[in-house]
Amino acid sequence: MKKSIAIDMDGVIADTETHLLNWYERDYGVRISLDEIQGLDEKEIFPDKTQSRKYVLTPGFFRTLPLMNGAVEAVKTLMESYEVYIVSAAMEFPLSLAEKLEWLNEHFPFIDWRHIIFCGDKSIINTDYMIDDHIKNLDYFKGTTIMFHAFHNVNYDHHQRVNNWDEVLELLEK
Amino acid sequence: MKKSIAIDMDGVIADTETHLLNWYERDYGVRISLDEIQGLDEKEIFPDKTQSRKYVLTPGFFRTLPLMNGAVEAVKTLMESYEVYIVSAAMEFPLSLAEKLEWLNEHFPFIDWRHIIFCGDKSIINTDYMIDDHIKNLDYFKGTTIMFHAFHNVNYDHHQRVNNWDEVLELLEK
Repeated sequence: MKKSIAIDMDGVIADTETHLLNWYERDYGVRISLDEIQGLDEKEIFPDKTQSRKYVLTPGFFRTLPLMNGAVEAVKTLMESYEVYIVSAAMEFPLSLAEKLEWLNEHFPFIDWRHIIFCGDKSIINTDYMIDDHIKNLDYFKGTTIMFHAFHNVNYDHHQRVNNWDEVLELLEK
Repeated sequence: MKKSIAIDMDGVIADTETHLLNWYERDYGVRISLDEIQGLDEKEIFPDKTQSRKYVLTPGFFRTLPLMNGAVEAVKTLMESYEVYIVSAAMEFPLSLAEKLEWLNEHFPFIDWRHIIFCGDKSIINTDYMIDDHIKNLDYFKGTTIMFHAFHNVNYDHHQRVNNWDEVLELLEK
Protein backbone atom coordinates (compact mmCIF):
# COMPACT_ATOMS: atom_id res chain seq x y z
CA MET A 1 0.00 0.00 0.00
CA LYS A 2 1.23 3.49 -0.82
CA LYS A 3 2.26 5.65 2.12
CA SER A 4 0.22 8.79 2.60
CA ILE A 5 1.26 12.45 2.77
CA ALA A 6 -0.74 15.43 4.05
CA ILE A 7 0.42 18.53 2.17
CA ASP A 8 -0.45 22.00 3.45
CA MET A 9 -1.55 24.81 1.12
CA ASP A 10 -0.50 28.24 2.42
CA GLY A 11 3.27 28.59 2.52
CA VAL A 12 3.79 25.16 0.96
CA ILE A 13 2.06 24.83 -2.42
CA ALA A 14 0.84 28.46 -2.42
CA ASP A 15 3.33 31.30 -1.97
CA THR A 16 1.45 33.21 0.70
CA GLU A 17 4.42 35.27 1.87
CA THR A 18 5.11 36.72 -1.59
CA HIS A 19 1.38 37.46 -2.01
CA LEU A 20 1.23 39.38 1.30
CA LEU A 21 4.31 41.43 0.41
CA ASN A 22 2.97 42.10 -3.12
CA TRP A 23 -0.38 43.35 -1.80
CA TYR A 24 1.37 45.57 0.72
CA GLU A 25 3.55 47.13 -1.97
CA ARG A 26 0.48 47.62 -4.19
CA ASP A 27 -1.41 49.39 -1.38
CA TYR A 28 1.38 51.30 0.41
CA GLY A 29 4.13 51.67 -2.19
CA VAL A 30 6.68 50.06 0.12
CA ARG A 31 8.47 46.84 -0.73
CA ILE A 32 9.26 44.86 2.37
CA SER A 33 11.99 42.33 1.61
CA LEU A 34 12.03 38.69 2.66
CA ASP A 35 15.23 39.44 4.62
CA GLU A 36 13.39 41.91 6.83
CA ILE A 37 10.72 39.45 7.97
CA GLN A 38 12.87 36.41 8.81
CA GLY A 39 11.92 35.01 12.21
CA LEU A 40 8.84 37.19 12.61
CA ASP A 41 5.36 35.94 13.30
CA GLU A 42 2.84 36.46 10.46
CA LYS A 43 1.14 39.18 12.49
CA GLU A 44 4.40 41.12 12.77
CA ILE A 45 5.48 41.54 9.18
CA PHE A 46 3.72 44.89 8.60
CA PRO A 47 3.92 48.02 10.80
CA ASP A 48 0.15 47.73 11.34
CA LYS A 49 -0.22 44.42 13.20
CA THR A 50 -3.77 43.92 11.89
CA GLN A 51 -2.76 44.21 8.21
CA SER A 52 -1.97 40.53 7.55
CA ARG A 53 -5.30 39.48 9.00
CA LYS A 54 -7.13 42.15 6.97
CA TYR A 55 -5.58 40.74 3.81
CA VAL A 56 -6.45 37.09 4.50
CA LEU A 57 -10.03 38.20 5.22
CA THR A 58 -10.25 40.09 1.89
CA PRO A 59 -12.32 38.36 -0.81
CA GLY A 60 -9.97 37.23 -3.59
CA PHE A 61 -6.86 36.85 -1.44
CA PHE A 62 -6.79 33.04 -1.49
CA ARG A 63 -8.12 32.76 -5.04
CA THR A 64 -5.19 34.76 -6.46
CA LEU A 65 -2.27 33.24 -4.53
CA PRO A 66 0.81 32.58 -6.66
CA LEU A 67 2.07 29.03 -6.84
CA MET A 68 5.09 28.01 -4.81
CA ASN A 69 8.02 27.35 -7.17
CA GLY A 70 8.08 23.75 -8.33
CA ALA A 71 4.99 22.70 -6.35
CA VAL A 72 2.84 21.46 -9.23
CA GLU A 73 5.48 19.22 -10.75
CA ALA A 74 6.66 17.93 -7.38
CA VAL A 75 3.14 17.02 -6.23
CA LYS A 76 2.56 15.21 -9.54
CA THR A 77 5.78 13.25 -9.00
CA LEU A 78 4.91 12.38 -5.40
CA MET A 79 1.50 11.08 -6.48
CA GLU A 80 3.23 8.32 -8.42
CA SER A 81 4.56 6.81 -5.18
CA TYR A 82 2.31 8.21 -2.42
CA GLU A 83 -1.34 8.84 -1.58
CA VAL A 84 -1.28 12.63 -1.55
CA TYR A 85 -3.84 14.61 0.48
CA ILE A 86 -4.10 18.39 0.48
CA VAL A 87 -4.89 19.43 4.06
CA SER A 88 -5.54 23.10 4.70
CA ALA A 89 -6.52 24.80 7.97
CA ALA A 90 -9.15 26.79 6.08
CA MET A 91 -11.93 26.81 8.65
CA GLU A 92 -10.69 29.96 10.41
CA PHE A 93 -11.51 31.96 7.28
CA PRO A 94 -14.90 30.83 5.97
CA LEU A 95 -14.60 32.94 2.82
CA SER A 96 -11.49 31.02 1.90
CA LEU A 97 -13.26 27.66 1.53
CA ALA A 98 -14.69 28.20 -1.95
CA GLU A 99 -11.64 30.21 -3.08
CA LYS A 100 -9.21 27.52 -1.99
CA LEU A 101 -11.19 24.82 -3.76
CA GLU A 102 -11.31 26.89 -6.97
CA TRP A 103 -7.58 27.57 -6.68
CA LEU A 104 -6.85 23.86 -6.30
CA ASN A 105 -9.09 23.00 -9.25
CA GLU A 106 -7.23 25.54 -11.38
CA HIS A 107 -3.65 24.68 -10.43
CA PHE A 108 -3.92 21.05 -9.29
CA PRO A 109 -6.82 19.68 -11.37
CA PHE A 110 -5.25 16.21 -11.11
CA ILE A 111 -6.01 16.05 -7.38
CA ASP A 112 -9.32 14.30 -6.79
CA TRP A 113 -11.85 15.93 -4.40
CA ARG A 114 -11.65 12.80 -2.24
CA HIS A 115 -8.10 13.84 -1.37
CA ILE A 116 -8.85 17.39 -0.21
CA ILE A 117 -9.43 18.25 3.46
CA PHE A 118 -10.29 21.64 4.94
CA CYS A 119 -10.00 21.61 8.70
CA GLY A 120 -9.56 23.69 11.80
CA ASP A 121 -6.67 22.24 13.71
CA LYS A 122 -4.87 19.29 12.14
CA SER A 123 -4.59 17.12 15.24
CA ILE A 124 -6.90 14.38 13.95
CA ILE A 125 -5.16 14.01 10.58
CA ASN A 126 -3.61 10.58 10.26
CA THR A 127 -1.15 10.18 7.39
CA ASP A 128 2.39 8.80 7.26
CA TYR A 129 3.95 12.17 6.43
CA MET A 130 2.95 15.79 6.89
CA ILE A 131 4.55 18.66 4.93
CA ASP A 132 3.68 21.95 6.61
CA ASP A 133 5.29 25.29 7.42
CA HIS A 134 3.58 25.71 10.80
CA ILE A 135 5.03 24.32 14.01
CA LYS A 136 1.54 24.29 15.55
CA ASN A 137 0.48 21.70 12.97
CA LEU A 138 3.68 19.64 12.93
CA ASP A 139 4.09 19.46 16.71
CA TYR A 140 0.85 17.48 17.22
CA PHE A 141 1.31 15.17 14.25
CA LYS A 142 1.95 11.49 14.99
CA GLY A 143 3.69 10.58 11.72
CA THR A 144 6.90 11.85 10.11
CA THR A 145 7.06 15.64 9.93
CA ILE A 146 8.63 17.74 7.19
CA MET A 147 8.88 21.48 7.87
CA PHE A 148 8.66 23.59 4.72
CA HIS A 149 10.87 26.64 5.06
CA ALA A 150 9.05 29.90 5.82
CA PHE A 151 10.09 33.23 7.35
CA HIS A 152 8.15 32.44 10.54
CA ASN A 153 9.80 29.06 11.19
CA VAL A 154 13.50 29.90 10.68
CA ASN A 155 14.21 29.76 14.42
CA TYR A 156 12.86 26.22 14.89
CA ASP A 157 14.86 23.10 14.23
CA HIS A 158 12.96 20.25 15.84
CA HIS A 159 11.44 19.13 12.53
CA GLN A 160 13.21 18.05 9.34
CA ARG A 161 13.53 21.26 7.31
CA VAL A 162 13.16 21.43 3.54
CA ASN A 163 13.91 24.71 1.79
CA ASN A 164 12.01 24.10 -1.43
CA TRP A 165 10.18 21.44 -3.45
CA ASP A 166 13.40 20.01 -4.91
CA GLU A 167 14.47 19.14 -1.38
CA VAL A 168 11.09 17.51 -0.67
CA LEU A 169 11.56 15.24 -3.67
CA GLU A 170 15.14 14.49 -2.70
CA LEU A 171 13.97 13.46 0.77
CA LEU A 172 10.92 11.41 -0.23
CA GLU A 173 12.07 9.85 -3.46
CA LYS A 174 15.35 8.48 -2.20
CA MET B 1 -6.94 13.17 28.00
CA LYS B 2 -10.47 13.18 26.60
CA LYS B 3 -11.23 10.62 23.92
CA SER B 4 -12.18 12.04 20.55
CA ILE B 5 -15.27 11.52 18.39
CA ALA B 6 -15.76 12.35 14.72
CA ILE B 7 -19.46 13.11 14.14
CA ASP B 8 -20.90 13.18 10.63
CA MET B 9 -23.38 15.86 9.50
CA ASP B 10 -25.80 14.53 6.86
CA GLY B 11 -28.01 11.79 8.26
CA VAL B 12 -26.54 12.17 11.75
CA ILE B 13 -26.92 15.71 13.10
CA ALA B 14 -28.86 16.93 10.04
CA ASP B 15 -32.01 15.09 8.95
CA THR B 16 -31.17 14.77 5.27
CA GLU B 17 -33.70 12.03 4.52
CA THR B 18 -36.66 14.07 5.78
CA HIS B 19 -35.40 17.09 3.83
CA LEU B 20 -35.20 15.11 0.57
CA LEU B 21 -38.71 13.70 1.04
CA ASN B 22 -40.06 17.17 1.95
CA TRP B 23 -38.58 18.76 -1.16
CA TYR B 24 -39.95 15.98 -3.34
CA GLU B 25 -43.45 16.42 -1.91
CA ARG B 26 -43.18 20.19 -2.40
CA ASP B 27 -42.16 19.78 -6.05
CA TYR B 28 -44.20 16.73 -7.13
CA GLY B 29 -47.10 16.59 -4.66
CA VAL B 30 -46.25 13.01 -3.71
CA ARG B 31 -45.29 12.02 -0.18
CA ILE B 32 -42.87 9.12 -0.22
CA SER B 33 -42.88 7.45 3.19
CA LEU B 34 -39.82 6.35 5.13
CA ASP B 35 -41.17 2.78 4.95
CA GLU B 36 -40.95 2.80 1.16
CA ILE B 37 -37.25 3.70 1.03
CA GLN B 38 -35.84 1.30 3.64
CA GLY B 39 -32.80 -0.52 2.28
CA LEU B 40 -32.54 1.64 -0.83
CA ASP B 41 -29.48 3.55 -1.95
CA GLU B 42 -29.82 7.36 -1.83
CA LYS B 43 -29.93 7.40 -5.63
CA GLU B 44 -32.93 5.06 -5.67
CA ILE B 45 -35.45 6.81 -3.45
CA PHE B 46 -37.16 8.78 -6.22
CA PRO B 47 -38.50 7.41 -9.56
CA ASP B 48 -36.04 9.72 -11.35
CA LYS B 49 -32.63 8.38 -10.27
CA THR B 50 -30.99 11.78 -10.80
CA GLN B 51 -33.41 13.63 -8.48
CA SER B 52 -31.47 13.17 -5.19
CA ARG B 53 -28.33 14.47 -6.82
CA LYS B 54 -30.17 17.42 -8.34
CA TYR B 55 -31.41 18.37 -4.87
CA VAL B 56 -28.02 18.18 -3.13
CA LEU B 57 -26.59 20.33 -5.91
CA THR B 58 -29.32 22.97 -5.45
CA PRO B 59 -28.20 26.16 -3.67
CA GLY B 60 -29.88 26.31 -0.28
CA PHE B 61 -30.32 22.56 0.20
CA PHE B 62 -27.65 22.17 2.89
CA ARG B 63 -28.36 25.56 4.48
CA THR B 64 -31.98 24.64 5.22
CA LEU B 65 -31.59 21.07 6.50
CA PRO B 66 -33.72 20.27 9.55
CA LEU B 67 -31.94 19.16 12.68
CA MET B 68 -31.89 15.50 13.62
CA ASN B 69 -34.03 14.98 16.73
CA GLY B 70 -32.02 15.39 19.91
CA ALA B 71 -28.74 16.14 18.11
CA VAL B 72 -28.00 19.57 19.62
CA GLU B 73 -28.48 18.52 23.23
CA ALA B 74 -26.67 15.21 22.74
CA VAL B 75 -23.62 16.84 21.13
CA LYS B 76 -23.50 19.36 23.98
CA THR B 77 -23.58 16.51 26.49
CA LEU B 78 -20.87 14.56 24.68
CA MET B 79 -18.62 17.63 24.64
CA GLU B 80 -18.43 17.46 28.43
CA SER B 81 -16.60 14.12 28.26
CA TYR B 82 -15.16 13.96 24.73
CA GLU B 83 -13.29 16.04 22.17
CA VAL B 84 -16.01 16.35 19.54
CA TYR B 85 -15.15 16.95 15.88
CA ILE B 86 -17.70 17.50 13.14
CA VAL B 87 -16.41 15.68 10.07
CA SER B 88 -18.38 16.05 6.86
CA ALA B 89 -17.62 14.67 3.40
CA ALA B 90 -18.49 18.05 1.89
CA MET B 91 -15.87 18.25 -0.82
CA GLU B 92 -17.97 16.45 -3.45
CA PHE B 93 -20.39 19.40 -3.44
CA PRO B 94 -18.36 22.61 -3.44
CA LEU B 95 -21.46 24.79 -3.01
CA SER B 96 -22.17 23.02 0.25
CA LEU B 97 -19.00 24.21 1.99
CA ALA B 98 -20.20 27.69 2.93
CA GLU B 99 -23.75 26.48 3.55
CA LYS B 100 -22.63 23.73 5.91
CA LEU B 101 -20.45 26.11 7.86
CA GLU B 102 -23.32 28.62 8.19
CA TRP B 103 -25.67 25.83 9.24
CA LEU B 104 -23.22 24.68 11.93
CA ASN B 105 -22.75 28.24 13.17
CA GLU B 106 -26.53 28.63 13.44
CA HIS B 107 -27.40 25.32 15.12
CA PHE B 108 -24.13 24.39 16.87
CA PRO B 109 -22.55 27.78 17.70
CA PHE B 110 -20.78 26.16 20.66
CA ILE B 111 -18.57 24.09 18.32
CA ASP B 112 -15.28 25.89 17.70
CA TRP B 113 -14.03 26.19 14.09
CA ARG B 114 -10.93 24.25 15.12
CA HIS B 115 -13.16 21.20 15.52
CA ILE B 116 -14.78 21.29 12.08
CA ILE B 117 -13.42 19.24 9.17
CA PHE B 118 -14.73 19.15 5.61
CA CYS B 119 -13.15 16.34 3.65
CA GLY B 120 -13.46 14.09 0.66
CA ASP B 121 -13.10 10.55 1.89
CA LYS B 122 -12.66 10.07 5.63
CA SER B 123 -9.86 7.52 5.50
CA ILE B 124 -7.26 9.81 7.09
CA ILE B 125 -9.45 10.86 10.03
CA ASN B 126 -7.96 9.63 13.28
CA THR B 127 -10.29 9.84 16.28
CA ASP B 128 -11.22 7.26 18.91
CA TYR B 129 -14.85 7.05 17.74
CA MET B 130 -16.70 7.77 14.53
CA ILE B 131 -20.49 8.27 14.36
CA ASP B 132 -21.61 8.04 10.75
CA ASP B 133 -24.50 6.64 8.72
CA HIS B 134 -22.36 5.56 5.75
CA ILE B 135 -20.68 2.17 5.56
CA LYS B 136 -18.09 3.61 3.13
CA ASN B 137 -16.84 5.91 5.91
CA LEU B 138 -17.10 3.45 8.80
CA ASP B 139 -15.47 0.53 6.97
CA TYR B 140 -12.12 2.32 6.60
CA PHE B 141 -12.05 3.82 10.07
CA LYS B 142 -9.43 2.50 12.48
CA GLY B 143 -11.17 3.43 15.75
CA THR B 144 -14.52 2.35 17.22
CA THR B 145 -17.39 2.72 14.77
CA ILE B 146 -20.98 3.69 15.58
CA MET B 147 -23.47 3.41 12.72
CA PHE B 148 -26.30 5.93 12.94
CA HIS B 149 -29.51 4.41 11.61
CA ALA B 150 -30.52 5.50 8.10
CA PHE B 151 -32.75 4.01 5.41
CA HIS B 152 -29.72 3.13 3.29
CA ASN B 153 -27.88 1.15 6.02
CA VAL B 154 -30.69 -1.07 7.38
CA ASN B 155 -29.26 -4.17 5.70
CA TYR B 156 -25.80 -3.87 7.26
CA ASP B 157 -24.95 -5.15 10.72
CA HIS B 158 -21.15 -5.17 10.92
CA HIS B 159 -21.05 -1.89 12.89
CA GLN B 160 -22.68 -1.06 16.22
CA ARG B 161 -26.05 0.43 15.29
CA VAL B 162 -27.69 3.33 17.12
CA ASN B 163 -31.23 4.32 16.18
CA ASN B 164 -31.25 7.84 17.57
CA TRP B 165 -29.28 10.30 19.70
CA ASP B 166 -30.62 8.86 22.98
CA GLU B 167 -28.98 5.58 22.08
CA VAL B 168 -25.69 7.35 21.27
CA LEU B 169 -25.68 8.88 24.75
CA GLU B 170 -26.60 5.57 26.34
CA LEU B 171 -23.67 3.92 24.57
CA LEU B 172 -21.03 6.60 25.16
CA GLU B 173 -21.99 7.87 28.59
CA LYS B 174 -22.18 4.49 30.30
